[in-house]
Amino acid sequence: MQQLGQYRALSNAPVEDHGIRVGLMGVPFDNGVSYQGGPRLAPQRIRSLMPRLARISEEGVPLVLPIFDYGDVGPDLDWARYFSTVEERALTVLNENQLALFLGGDHSVGIPLFKAFARRFPGPVGYIQFDAHPDLADEYDGHPWSHACTARRNLEQAGLDHRHLAFVGLRSHMVDELQYYAEHPEIGWHTAREVYRRGIEAVARDVAAQLAGVSAVYLSIDVDGIDPSCTPGTGTPVHGGPSMRECMEFMRIIYAELPVRAMDIVEVSPPLDISDVTSMAAVKLLYEGCGFFQEKSLR
Amino acid sequence: MQQLGQYRALSNAPVEDHGIRVGLMGVPFDNGVSYQGGPRLAPQRIRSLMPRLARISEEGVPLVLPIFDYGDVGPDLDWARYFSTVEERALTVLNENQLALFLGGDHSVGIPLFKAFARRFPGPVGYIQFDAHPDLADEYDGHPWSHACTARRNLEQAGLDHRHLAFVGLRSHMVDELQYYAEHPEIGWHTAREVYRRGIEAVARDVAAQLAGVSAVYLSIDVDGIDPSCTPGTGTPVHGGPSMRECMEFMRIIYAELPVRAMDIVEVSPPLDISDVTSMAAVKLLYEGCGFFQEKSLR
Amino acid sequence: MQQLGQYRALSNAPVEDHGIRVGLMGVPFDNGVSYQGGPRLAPQRIRSLMPRLARISEEGVPLVLPIFDYGDVGPDLDWARYFSTVEERALTVLNENQLALFLGGDHSVGIPLFKAFARRFPGPVGYIQFDAHPDLADEYDGHPWSHACTARRNLEQAGLDHRHLAFVGLRSHMVDELQYYAEHPEIGWHTAREVYRRGIEAVARDVAAQLAGVSAVYLSIDVDGIDPSCTPGTGTPVHGGPSMRECMEFMRIIYAELPVRAMDIVEVSPPLDISDVTSMAAVKLLYEGCGFFQEKSLR
Amino acid sequence: MQQLGQYRALSNAPVEDHGIRVGLMGVPFDNGVSYQGGPRLAPQRIRSLMPRLARISEEGVPLVLPIFDYGDVGPDLDWARYFSTVEERALTVLNENQLALFLGGDHSVGIPLFKAFARRFPGPVGYIQFDAHPDLADEYDGHPWSHACTARRNLEQAGLDHRHLAFVGLRSHMVDELQYYAEHPEIGWHTAREVYRRGIEAVARDVAAQLAGVSAVYLSIDVDGIDPSCTPGTGTPVHGGPSMRECMEFMRIIYAELPVRAMDIVEVSPPLDISDVTSMAAVKLLYEGCGFFQEKSLR
Amino acid sequence: MQQLGQYRALSNAPVEDHGIRVGLMGVPFDNGVSYQGGPRLAPQRIRSLMPRLARISEEGVPLVLPIFDYGDVGPDLDWARYFSTVEERALTVLNENQLALFLGGDHSVGIPLFKAFARRFPGPVGYIQFDAHPDLADEYDGHPWSHACTARRNLEQAGLDHRHLAFVGLRSHMVDELQYYAEHPEIGWHTAREVYRRGIEAVARDVAAQLAGVSAVYLSIDVDGIDPSCTPGTGTPVHGGPSMRECMEFMRIIYAELPVRAMDIVEVSPPLDISDVTSMAAVKLLYEGCGFFQEKSLR
Amino acid sequence: MQQLGQYRALSNAPVEDHGIRVGLMGVPFDNGVSYQGGPRLAPQRIRSLMPRLARISEEGVPLVLPIFDYGDVGPDLDWARYFSTVEERALTVLNENQLALFLGGDHSVGIPLFKAFARRFPGPVGYIQFDAHPDLADEYDGHPWSHACTARRNLEQAGLDHRHLAFVGLRSHMVDELQYYAEHPEIGWHTAREVYRRGIEAVARDVAAQLAGVSAVYLSIDVDGIDPSCTPGTGTPVHGGPSMRECMEFMRIIYAELPVRAMDIVEVSPPLDISDVTSMAAVKLLYEGCGFFQEKSLR
Repeated sequence: MQQLGQYRALSNAPVEDHGIRVGLMGVPFDNGVSYQGGPRLAPQRIRSLMPRLARISEEGVPLVLPIFDYGDVGPDLDWARYFSTVEERALTVLNENQLALFLGGDHSVGIPLFKAFARRFPGPVGYIQFDAHPDLADEYDGHPWSHACTARRNLEQAGLDHRHLAFVGLRSHMVDELQYYAEHPEIGWHTAREVYRRGIEAVARDVAAQLAGVSAVYLSIDVDGIDPSCTPGTGTPVHGGPSMRECMEFMRIIYAELPVRAMDIVEVSPPLDISDVTSMAAVKLLYEGCGFFQEKSLR
Repeated sequence: MQQLGQYRALSNAPVEDHGIRVGLMGVPFDNGVSYQGGPRLAPQRIRSLMPRLARISEEGVPLVLPIFDYGDVGPDLDWARYFSTVEERALTVLNENQLALFLGGDHSVGIPLFKAFARRFPGPVGYIQFDAHPDLADEYDGHPWSHACTARRNLEQAGLDHRHLAFVGLRSHMVDELQYYAEHPEIGWHTAREVYRRGIEAVARDVAAQLAGVSAVYLSIDVDGIDPSCTPGTGTPVHGGPSMRECMEFMRIIYAELPVRAMDIVEVSPPLDISDVTSMAAVKLLYEGCGFFQEKSLR
Repeated sequence: MQQLGQYRALSNAPVEDHGIRVGLMGVPFDNGVSYQGGPRLAPQRIRSLMPRLARISEEGVPLVLPIFDYGDVGPDLDWARYFSTVEERALTVLNENQLALFLGGDHSVGIPLFKAFARRFPGPVGYIQFDAHPDLADEYDGHPWSHACTARRNLEQAGLDHRHLAFVGLRSHMVDELQYYAEHPEIGWHTAREVYRRGIEAVARDVAAQLAGVSAVYLSIDVDGIDPSCTPGTGTPVHGGPSMRECMEFMRIIYAELPVRAMDIVEVSPPLDISDVTSMAAVKLLYEGCGFFQEKSLR
Repeated sequence: MQQLGQYRALSNAPVEDHGIRVGLMGVPFDNGVSYQGGPRLAPQRIRSLMPRLARISEEGVPLVLPIFDYGDVGPDLDWARYFSTVEERALTVLNENQLALFLGGDHSVGIPLFKAFARRFPGPVGYIQFDAHPDLADEYDGHPWSHACTARRNLEQAGLDHRHLAFVGLRSHMVDELQYYAEHPEIGWHTAREVYRRGIEAVARDVAAQLAGVSAVYLSIDVDGIDPSCTPGTGTPVHGGPSMRECMEFMRIIYAELPVRAMDIVEVSPPLDISDVTSMAAVKLLYEGCGFFQEKSLR
Repeated sequence: MQQLGQYRALSNAPVEDHGIRVGLMGVPFDNGVSYQGGPRLAPQRIRSLMPRLARISEEGVPLVLPIFDYGDVGPDLDWARYFSTVEERALTVLNENQLALFLGGDHSVGIPLFKAFARRFPGPVGYIQFDAHPDLADEYDGHPWSHACTARRNLEQAGLDHRHLAFVGLRSHMVDELQYYAEHPEIGWHTAREVYRRGIEAVARDVAAQLAGVSAVYLSIDVDGIDPSCTPGTGTPVHGGPSMRECMEFMRIIYAELPVRAMDIVEVSPPLDISDVTSMAAVKLLYEGCGFFQEKSLR
Repeated sequence: MQQLGQYRALSNAPVEDHGIRVGLMGVPFDNGVSYQGGPRLAPQRIRSLMPRLARISEEGVPLVLPIFDYGDVGPDLDWARYFSTVEERALTVLNENQLALFLGGDHSVGIPLFKAFARRFPGPVGYIQFDAHPDLADEYDGHPWSHACTARRNLEQAGLDHRHLAFVGLRSHMVDELQYYAEHPEIGWHTAREVYRRGIEAVARDVAAQLAGVSAVYLSIDVDGIDPSCTPGTGTPVHGGPSMRECMEFMRIIYAELPVRAMDIVEVSPPLDISDVTSMAAVKLLYEGCGFFQEKSLR
């Protein structure tokens, strides 16, 4: 995590020492998806685009908290060993920083990341997934670690309580997932159409109310949760989702109301992207997330 | 139409026999456009992407009605003979199914398709065109079957009444078309800007009121009716249109309020598309259309 | 400016002589940007796409004012001499027409263009920049003519009053720019988020009120002001901006309420574009601008 | 054909008047192909790239003969009428110039072009097709004017003698075409593999010997005759063909040894092209052809 | 393997029954590569392009042997189980056909495919790899089944003798691979530069001589063995390789001189491809391979 | 030049200390070209691809000489100051290393680079330009530093003797350039066609003979010198050039026969490239150049 200097240079404002740190780590893995790879290239691409956006929030707040880059978890074709490495390295990032930012990779990387999160914050933790799909399959493509199983694994293996799980932006499901939700109505289940009809602010406040009281919140942003008009570079684009604007407004409220301690951005697929707009969206979300976190931390 | 088995397999829910069938046919033809081809490749591409979206509506309704695929109307460079074949084969699809789904092709394929529709439902039928252009030219590029003439031909050759014709999403016209509308103010004429100002629901309800009482409705979705941010892969993108979300909300009301018996999706141009987002939009519209139809049919 | 005939042919309506003319000139230059070129190709590409859109406004007003094309200011690698040529040729366009339309080029071309504008209209003139960035840097990449310095130069070199400068769509800044604004709060400063929350109409009316009384208004549209979902083909896309629809509604009010006499469209980058949607957006904005101007002029 | 001025400007050398003229005409038509359009966009694209290559042959001969541009034969969706127009306009070009250059379009445009050529030169004329396919089908996709029928039509409808027909670069055939050749062994039939094994010079000299004595030669270059590594932007790329270098060496010998009076370049498909390399190849072939013709004419 | 009918239809010549069959199977897997996926999409894409090339060899031999399509080995994220399935299904193809054609996938799929081959032909078998890389790593990215280990695994796990292993086209190596070759100089080791200097025919005859006497030969074509000018759509393009023409001439001699019983084509990566030229190259190689096999079989 | 560690890691062989060093520096500048930018992005892209090719020559020689990376000369929009900076920094690289590798940028960057070279090696130095164009214009686009003027400036400003200037691969010229050559026939002038006819080895040996006796040689590789089939990603592709194989064979002889002390690779344009094949070509040329240099140095 020695690249602080590099990241400081990106800022147009001086880094300030408030005893609060942000850690960044990439997980360039996409073997949890059978249809088509691509997300493994995202961390490198997103990093390379970071210098193109000023480290100032869209509302004009210079991001003064230091960001420590822990690099990427390098390739290892032994899946079990790789996820174990991811979990351990994520735990380090979580231990050494107040906010951890993780860059996927396909959504399966959320399995070891959230396991580390649950180890770091042993009290009741919350998990919010901004996604077109609930990823509640028990198994997919013959494997329990498919990117369609992340939320299910988080519930079963990491002690997540159904009451502390919320989805936002849903619009593509499998029969088994619908059945699972029917059996667990305490899950927060907000479709894209609900966002359209009620407005993202109302939905965000519902989620904040649902998770009130948890000790720490993990926010997972699957870019296919956002509408493909904004983030086309992803493996399973589903039309009709919230816009980038709505995603940012959602994050603004969640960071303000809940103790977000980790955020991942997954399923960015540079080979499917168009003029890097999806990777640029990831950069924007990273910086705005830092800004929202800073606003709360330094309040 | 023997590929039922294939399509059943795509569903995550069992197909159910309610005596209601959906038929699908492609018309890979784009010689009705002079500027640039492409839509002839759409049926094949859209079909190939169908397995990537679960056959469940965005609101969670499994699509249990069987879909029978009648394949594509194969190439024939003799235009008159080709359109005649299209008309006859479309009539078969309409006769054997309660809902017919047609995949263009450029918009000129709507001419034989609607002729078949008018033969199938001889009572007063309605025709709704979701499009940036009214396609009311008498002739274009020297031919009355240009893709800019579809609505005009439907009025003149297939007995469509001006009172039963409605446009939604208009934002690009020719002088002759404006003149034609001035002479026929009973046509439903809803611009994209009207959609922006009044909301798609209000416009949809106006259309439903206009067409109340017809025996059957043909809904034609030209993907250039939708905003290019959502569906860029089309030959004449025109900015400022309704979003995919608005298109789906429009369809939801139309299917609920009117007896939709056929829907086409035209002007998808895979060579102009970007990471297949426009073809994926077509898949989404097909599936949501099936869902809306099913909700009403099985009510 | 001999290509009138060509442009008349594009119209579906006869050109009418009301003593009011529109002039068009391209400035294919992008050496004011260090990261990546591209905008120099825009004028040629945008012109080539003009015939693909009917010269009728989206609301159905045939554009009958003649458009005179003054061609492009050809390449000259001597920057100072080039900008001087641009300024002189722009002055000619401004002198010979009631509305001048300029096609960039990167935003630095606005420096000589606005200098010509200030010479043409020596009274208090207004400058509206629809942009994600305020371009208020004193110097950037070692040069005062960087595309990040346009508004600053307009203030300092062309006598623009801070009270007559308005920004709309801001969402990416540098620390120095924020500082400059803090020192000059009389500048109109409207962020993208403000547009989202208050609506574009309210923001447009604020701008109209701010600039009330100026003798002439220069409207600069940086396409990165618009959301990347609509106009991805630009060098520094920033998510969360107003849509093309909102941009057009903004223009509608500005043209109606203020004496717009020049408009530029800059930072369109064809090599970064996708199926020409961004260039098509420029064509749309040009035509709608002509329509708004005509509506007011012929009222 | 008024654009002489424009083309003179492209030259780096002054145009000289030797009483010898070159005429250029585009035929932007691709409805003779069922699979996928694209060549209709070629004339416009190729023309736009002409200024990017100096009008000097690769061996350093300035092209001083004037080139008169007859523009494109504009769109007409009535196929029979369109081909009739093409034939008449081609005849004019052939009558008014010593060398006619035609830009397709798909290969079907060769049917009216060669008909005009046979009318212009009523003596025994020669026809050389540089192509991966012999285009000898009697009918294809239900039509005798398919782009797979060009050579067959030239033989049957335009009085071409089998002895004066030569193919170079063949590597993809249909059974009927092989049968036709078996029945007409006097046709010059040179496969791509023969070019590889014997060298293009030997093959070119065989063709020159075969056609010795004809009054005029029409050279048709289907860019799919060239290897896809050089010209990928075409609808049916077939690997293993001669390179651009070999194509140019072939042309050099043919122009030197035979009375070439017309050349077409067909099947360039800009939408399938990559960074315009195939269109640039067409420009190169046009210019080298002019150079070879000039070298012989002014000798 | 029921799709015979479909493939017969593709032929322009009638299928003939000589008691000799060809089997085709896809292995859409690319988790053996850490850098970037893509080859998993190749079988589907290559199949979809097969109808675009006539089933006739480039030299005019109609391919009359029936091709039986065994489909693809569907996704299974459990790697060990997947390779086991591949091996068993490949064995079936090998048992039921005289020639087996396999479509990768990345090169790691050659591990189970060759294991099946070695089981099918227990005598001394030969293995020829046309490739830029020798794939002789003991382990790569932490796994012995990486696509950089294929030849090494074939030697160690499937009983391949070093004397019966030949490489053609080599031009990118790792130190360990060079060391391995130094210890096993009996391996046939032919660099791309040797091909350039000696000619592909001489190299092919050396390989034929080296493998004389084996009972069956497995020919593995990694498309990165071919020069990127011909086959750019692959994950690790290395310049300076043999052309498609040379690859075909190589295959012609190998099929003629040696008992080829299986051929794979691997590392085609459709997402990295350009206008499908690399997939079209694979189709060409498949068809020419069938033609060479047929010429020998029916001799 | 602190990034040695990073580059050592790329090697599969240990770096060895022979007192011989290689220095690498990027010059991301393309304002010397008026048509279209792009080469400024090359140094970053080429560096990012370096890890994908093993640091071993194609013939199997591990590259053991250390490569010191001097980074890029950062952006400065003041052209004169930028070129001055480039010259000074290049001089440092030349002073501290036995071989200097420079990555453009457009070809104009060769002007300050060669000036530094001429200062470093004051004896008679040689300059070899592998290029489609001679770049001998006195001025272009109004400026003497255009990328079309590089060789002319080297002759006039850096004391290069016409007898020590050689071009290889020429195939596109301007009249003035041909005139200049006519006046200076002692320049080595080798067209692409000569390479085709005589073979690259013969041409290379001629160049070696021409430059025998110079104290140091600067080799400039403009990637448009190579055929566009191999290196399409460049601003002015000209067909009919030598292949990558021929370019490498040329370099092999030049490095062996002459004291090459600097090499640049210019005009790689990532935005115009296709799947990075042109950037990969640059990596290959860099590594092979290192290999040739090492073979000679350690001999």
